[in-house]
Amino acid sequence: MNATARWTPDRVEDLRIETRRFIRDRVMPHEPAPGTHVDDELRVRLQSDARAAGVFAPQVPTEFGGLGLPIEHWSPVFQEAGYSPLGALALNCMAPDEGNMHMLGEVATAAQREEYLRPLAAGQTRSCFGMSEPHPGAGSDPSALRTVAARDGDGWVISGVKRFSSGAVGAALAIVMARTLGDDGDGGDGATMFLVPMNTPGVRVGAPLRTMDRAIVGGHPHVHFDDVRVPETAVLGEVGLGFRYAQVRLGPARLTHCMRWLGLARRAHSTALDRAAARELFGSRVNELGIAQGMLADSVIDIETSDAIISRTAALLANDPRAGAALSSVAKVHCSEAIVRVVDRSMQLLGGEGVSEHLPLASFFNEVRPFRIYDGSNETQRWAIARRAVKSRSRERAAGEPALDALREWGVGDA
Amino acid sequence: MNATARWTPDRVEDLRIETRRFIRDRVMPHEPAPGTHVDDELRVRLQSDARAAGVFAPQVPTEFGGLGLPIEHWSPVFQEAGYSPLGALALNCMAPDEGNMHMLGEVATAAQREEYLRPLAAGQTRSCFGMSEPHPGAGSDPSALRTVAARDGDGWVISGVKRFSSGAVGAALAIVMARTLGDDGDGGDGATMFLVPMNTPGVRVGAPLRTMDRAIVGGHPHVHFDDVRVPETAVLGEVGLGFRYAQVRLGPARLTHCMRWLGLARRAHSTALDRAAARELFGSRVNELGIAQGMLADSVIDIETSDAIISRTAALLANDPRAGAALSSVAKVHCSEAIVRVVDRSMQLLGGEGVSEHLPLASFFNEVRPFRIYDGSNETQRWAIARRAVKSRSRERAAGEPALDALREWGVGDA
Amino acid sequence: MNATARWTPDRVEDLRIETRRFIRDRVMPHEPAPGTHVDDELRVRLQSDARAAGVFAPQVPTEFGGLGLPIEHWSPVFQEAGYSPLGALALNCMAPDEGNMHMLGEVATAAQREEYLRPLAAGQTRSCFGMSEPHPGAGSDPSALRTVAARDGDGWVISGVKRFSSGAVGAALAIVMARTLGDDGDGGDGATMFLVPMNTPGVRVGAPLRTMDRAIVGGHPHVHFDDVRVPETAVLGEVGLGFRYAQVRLGPARLTHCMRWLGLARRAHSTALDRAAARELFGSRVNELGIAQGMLADSVIDIETSDAIISRTAALLANDPRAGAALSSVAKVHCSEAIVRVVDRSMQLLGGEGVSEHLPLASFFNEVRPFRIYDGSNETQRWAIARRAVKSRSRERAAGEPALDALREWGVGDA
Amino acid sequence: MNATARWTPDRVEDLRIETRRFIRDRVMPHEPAPGTHVDDELRVRLQSDARAAGVFAPQVPTEFGGLGLPIEHWSPVFQEAGYSPLGALALNCMAPDEGNMHMLGEVATAAQREEYLRPLAAGQTRSCFGMSEPHPGAGSDPSALRTVAARDGDGWVISGVKRFSSGAVGAALAIVMARTLGDDGDGGDGATMFLVPMNTPGVRVGAPLRTMDRAIVGGHPHVHFDDVRVPETAVLGEVGLGFRYAQVRLGPARLTHCMRWLGLARRAHSTALDRAAARELFGSRVNELGIAQGMLADSVIDIETSDAIISRTAALLANDPRAGAALSSVAKVHCSEAIVRVVDRSMQLLGGEGVSEHLPLASFFNEVRPFRIYDGSNETQRWAIARRAVKSRSRERAAGEPALDALREWGVGDA
Repeated sequence: MNATARWTPDRVEDLRIETRRFIRDRVMPHEPAPGTHVDDELRVRLQSDARAAGVFAPQVPTEFGGLGLPIEHWSPVFQEAGYSPLGALALNCMAPDEGNMHMLGEVATAAQREEYLRPLAAGQTRSCFGMSEPHPGAGSDPSALRTVAARDGDGWVISGVKRFSSGAVGAALAIVMARTLGDDGDGGDGATMFLVPMNTPGVRVGAPLRTMDRAIVGGHPHVHFDDVRVPETAVLGEVGLGFRYAQVRLGPARLTHCMRWLGLARRAHSTALDRAAARELFGSRVNELGIAQGMLADSVIDIETSDAIISRTAALLANDPRAGAALSSVAKVHCSEAIVRVVDRSMQLLGGEGVSEHLPLASFFNEVRPFRIYDGSNETQRWAIARRAVKSRSRERAAGEPALDALREWGVGDA
Repeated sequence: MNATARWTPDRVEDLRIETRRFIRDRVMPHEPAPGTHVDDELRVRLQSDARAAGVFAPQVPTEFGGLGLPIEHWSPVFQEAGYSPLGALALNCMAPDEGNMHMLGEVATAAQREEYLRPLAAGQTRSCFGMSEPHPGAGSDPSALRTVAARDGDGWVISGVKRFSSGAVGAALAIVMARTLGDDGDGGDGATMFLVPMNTPGVRVGAPLRTMDRAIVGGHPHVHFDDVRVPETAVLGEVGLGFRYAQVRLGPARLTHCMRWLGLARRAHSTALDRAAARELFGSRVNELGIAQGMLADSVIDIETSDAIISRTAALLANDPRAGAALSSVAKVHCSEAIVRVVDRSMQLLGGEGVSEHLPLASFFNEVRPFRIYDGSNETQRWAIARRAVKSRSRERAAGEPALDALREWGVGDA
Repeated sequence: MNATARWTPDRVEDLRIETRRFIRDRVMPHEPAPGTHVDDELRVRLQSDARAAGVFAPQVPTEFGGLGLPIEHWSPVFQEAGYSPLGALALNCMAPDEGNMHMLGEVATAAQREEYLRPLAAGQTRSCFGMSEPHPGAGSDPSALRTVAARDGDGWVISGVKRFSSGAVGAALAIVMARTLGDDGDGGDGATMFLVPMNTPGVRVGAPLRTMDRAIVGGHPHVHFDDVRVPETAVLGEVGLGFRYAQVRLGPARLTHCMRWLGLARRAHSTALDRAAARELFGSRVNELGIAQGMLADSVIDIETSDAIISRTAALLANDPRAGAALSSVAKVHCSEAIVRVVDRSMQLLGGEGVSEHLPLASFFNEVRPFRIYDGSNETQRWAIARRAVKSRSRERAAGEPALDALREWGVGDA
Repeated sequence: MNATARWTPDRVEDLRIETRRFIRDRVMPHEPAPGTHVDDELRVRLQSDARAAGVFAPQVPTEFGGLGLPIEHWSPVFQEAGYSPLGALALNCMAPDEGNMHMLGEVATAAQREEYLRPLAAGQTRSCFGMSEPHPGAGSDPSALRTVAARDGDGWVISGVKRFSSGAVGAALAIVMARTLGDDGDGGDGATMFLVPMNTPGVRVGAPLRTMDRAIVGGHPHVHFDDVRVPETAVLGEVGLGFRYAQVRLGPARLTHCMRWLGLARRAHSTALDRAAARELFGSRVNELGIAQGMLADSVIDIETSDAIISRTAALLANDPRAGAALSSVAKVHCSEAIVRVVDRSMQLLGGEGVSEHLPLASFFNEVRPFRIYDGSNETQRWAIARRAVKSRSRERAAGEPALDALREWGVGDA
């Protein structure tokens, strides 16, 4: 019986409820003070608790110690995890490890999976993903890739610099995208992904660049690759298919961000609802209650539409990864903006306390705000979405659909 | 084999494509000039064509001559219908008949269905729905209902005035909501729905109040009920359950509006895409193209999120009508605003021609704009959505969820 | 004593109040049914009344029969005029005549002013402005101008087609922008404006293209110039300075649109306030009142910020026309969007009646919506605004301002 | 010669430029790392520099050592100060001292001004303002005031708790609003303001509650008043006029917040423009440039409209403080939202670096975001704005303006 058949709606709902209980009881009490960075010790402790509670690594295949939940059912469970900024870390479904594990599961050889996926899945190691580069390298435009891998006997030598390598401090593995040069050094082979242990000579991690979000362990540093020599077995999948695999990774990775942070948006919204209920009870500030109702309703709408587009995209990713990856751009833009709005509104509804350090709303805001930039800024996504829309419509017209923008003269009484 | 099993994804997709072809080939050429009202003659002609094309009355049960499509599959077909302002009329899935037929199918007796549903389903008659009343009667607050039905021997006498009775001019049947008075006239029985033939003595239709939209046949007039005597068999369902049936009608009715007008939004968006493609080709206005891309992407996002929340709500309505009706409020607010935005953006992208009468964009805008008001204004919906959210969260807290708005002191190094 | 000194704040306020009274008493009763086009007969009648009331042609110099109000004081008076869609027509301060008169006053010779400005100022004639051309001519990019004027003996021969020539049907004068060809036909002279009587042989007006707005007399037709011969005295100002004069015209013309339509937005807002007051009195729909208050407040904010940016821009236009023209782009985008929002919100607040033809809200919406496109679409304006901002900042940096986007490392305890 | 006459436009412009230079050269180099709180030592050092540069205390009357700039000219200078989060502190025009000094200047006796205003104006002391109280006291609804002052012989005894007392840690003076009880303890005297030295027995400052903003010195703690005895000379102005004085303070105080933070918004916008210019030069990310242009233009529009409404409100406050205070609500809502949008957009435009700690954008965001809550949350302001709008319109109707919401029947050909 395959995973999809095994995970009936009831079983998924059970797991969701167990996850919910675990987050409330075992994770939320350990949330750090606003502005505090999370360290690896806390991660290890929480993951141990999650394993004991039977909710660890829900998305990881069972043969690697996970629960084997299929992607179309991740959303309710990941949202529950995301209800705490620490939840995904506790369940080992946090970026970038979650996306890296997913890609290893899809592309890696059996030996590579044993060597890298197994300890990652068990929470024994962490990993990072080396794609983005300092200007003028591969930023939002991957084709500008400047990190290169040159053949060298039976292996490769990698040179370049990556930036925003989230989680790199303390990571055991980097998955690195490099332009692979043929024997004649002409780059004909395109881009390739390499599995590079972080203790390989020539790998050097920069300062742990900090951003306004705090929940990730290991910062977002630069990682330098100075003539790093790796064997042929370091190649992930096939040489030259790096961009294709990047898409394999990016579609789900974008979507799981949506899931986790939607959980945090629900938390912020619940906080505002609790305050709204109290206001109604005590009769205070009734004057503004009407405007507050409009804001609460807008948050419900943002949450429900995000939930719906996530579900649809997850189902599509399970059946048609290419179409799913395209729709994940749409989901990413909508959800990231909706999530930021929900947290912002909730903070506003709490008034002065909402921006104080006695409630975590402002720190939640700082946690979710960068999502409008991460995983391809929303502006880059919009550009890509518009291009796809124009092309897709052009194909429709080429297939016989009438052009609609021709000016028309209506005669009198034409109807 | 039941309808849900019979309608495989492939069959649904076939019907969608046939509907699409029918709309392009047989309906769009008959679209009236901007500002023109649609008349009944055109409706009859188009419905005859639809019947010939095998796409007539997709949502109507097969025993009444329809295609028997289950509600969870209406959306793709209704969206194709909505690609033309005339499409839903042609397919006989236009408001208010579609909602009335749905309610009759769910609630009416076999005899009532024969008498009223069969000719409606065949497009031989039209109907209206009498709920909203002139101020200070039942507007957005149905509990203020002032139309009354008093027992009178073996029948009832109905008195009152309804307004915004869409489609009433020329309709054969009115479904009328009235406060039913017990023998002692005290209103103890709540509200009841009555099936009232429009030629019953005492029924009088006012002037065909016009609104900025044009596609409905029969206007939105007042209908006066002056001591209208109807037999006991005029009661729809049970006495006193009128509000419950109104919900049965409203949930799907709101959602089918979303489906149809989303189709029209797709049409407007396609028009803008066609122009965008042309601009790229001819190199003109490239300066503004970037801003235009952002607008096109926003329209894609509006369309896809609307599509996703509609699908989810339709599936919920099929399985849990009460939860589905609640979610349909959320869908209605999101979709109506998204649809208006898409049409507005498309009109803007066409520039001066977009607001001219040589393209139908401005008339599409006038068609969709009232949806933010119809079926319960979005502000009323927001008020209801917020109330439900506060109540639902209060129930969660009562069931043991921790309150989240308590101020907290973090010790140093608490993490 | 010059005009600015003569128009004390008290005199301006008196004129505003007289205008207000005139609009209420003499103009509003004649407003046409929604969707109706305005005809010239009504214009003549209303202008006669305005003259009698002493409020005619406020912006026209006294020597041409106007009140001589300086541009920095136009806003309060034009806003009062705009309270009715007919008001600006009645006062002879409607587009395009108002902008044409302004330009004639600034640029024309004494003889040209006598011949063309005097009858225009008196309301005896109307005019149009020929700038925009059918694709691929001068649309939002004036440099693509395809209408040409070639020297021919002691005059010029003009050939080309103009579109969106608002007011052309029935106009006596066209001010036409054409690329002027030198004797060798090489276009070295740039663009020039010509004063062309509409009865000149070779001038032909196309069908009165209709748009969703209705208040303009004379439609927005194409005007064809087929080898139209005009004398040297037809040149407005100097040969080759057409684009400069276009800016002279456009800055104020954009701003007076803001003024007039802001008046109409105030009218829509007042209608919503009247209904809000009634609701409070009768206790109905109190549930939604809170959300409505938020909407009413947003309209106040839109109106007040529009008023403020208009005043500032008008003052700047009086003192520094070039800077004023640049700021008028900002004012145009803000005001056009704010005005559309105010009218849209007001229509929404009126519910079903707001979109009905028993109240003029929907027709007001159709009147103001095109302003986001007219006078350079808001997207074109945004492109120009951004370019100016980048350039202006680059000049600041060139003058010694420190660049702000350099990454920085803060030492510990740096503060 | 009075201050207004003395401060010619040229002199104001000179001061603006000097302030600009001072901020660039002497303040910006001392800006703290993101997330760092500002301490008093830094304040003293910067103020000393400002005094030396001749830009200290621009708004303070000359007899108290300031530059005597009238309120209608504050905006350009305060905006320059606000270009750095430390600027207003350096110039001694930071909240809450600036608002307290303004109120002392307007209301205090000569002796009180000598005792309290003089050292404040010189930067020798700091102050706080005690108005807001913990729930259910005076929050956004001042009438719920629970702090009381009871007559006691020739003085008063004050009891109560204030919260969000910005700047209280280290302050020398609190201006405290209390409900004044008559001899019979019945509260008939309304509210009164008291000048309370912070070292008066019974005054106790709570923990320095921290919020997401950092630039204020002295936190936002609770201040407890436990039977604090003050002499009759501690009364500010007249007994019972506390709310009136609060309005005197609030109108300008709200507006100076707008001015200062608009300066910071300009800084963030300039940072984005610098990056935009670099992108154009190096040709990178041209794909997204169009969408970025739209965002840059929106920021220009937000800045210019904020600037315009601030100027208008400042001029009104100078001439009609009551009308100015009402308009300051509108300005506060618009500017606070516009400022937050500008900083948010600028952060977005900088991409990953925008949310990193290598650029101050995220910390600017945290600085300005609370303004939508401070000084009366924007929702409370909207409620008040809507109420004033409804009342003002009702007065117009009472004075004879025709009601506009009456339904109307248009006859055919009515125009």
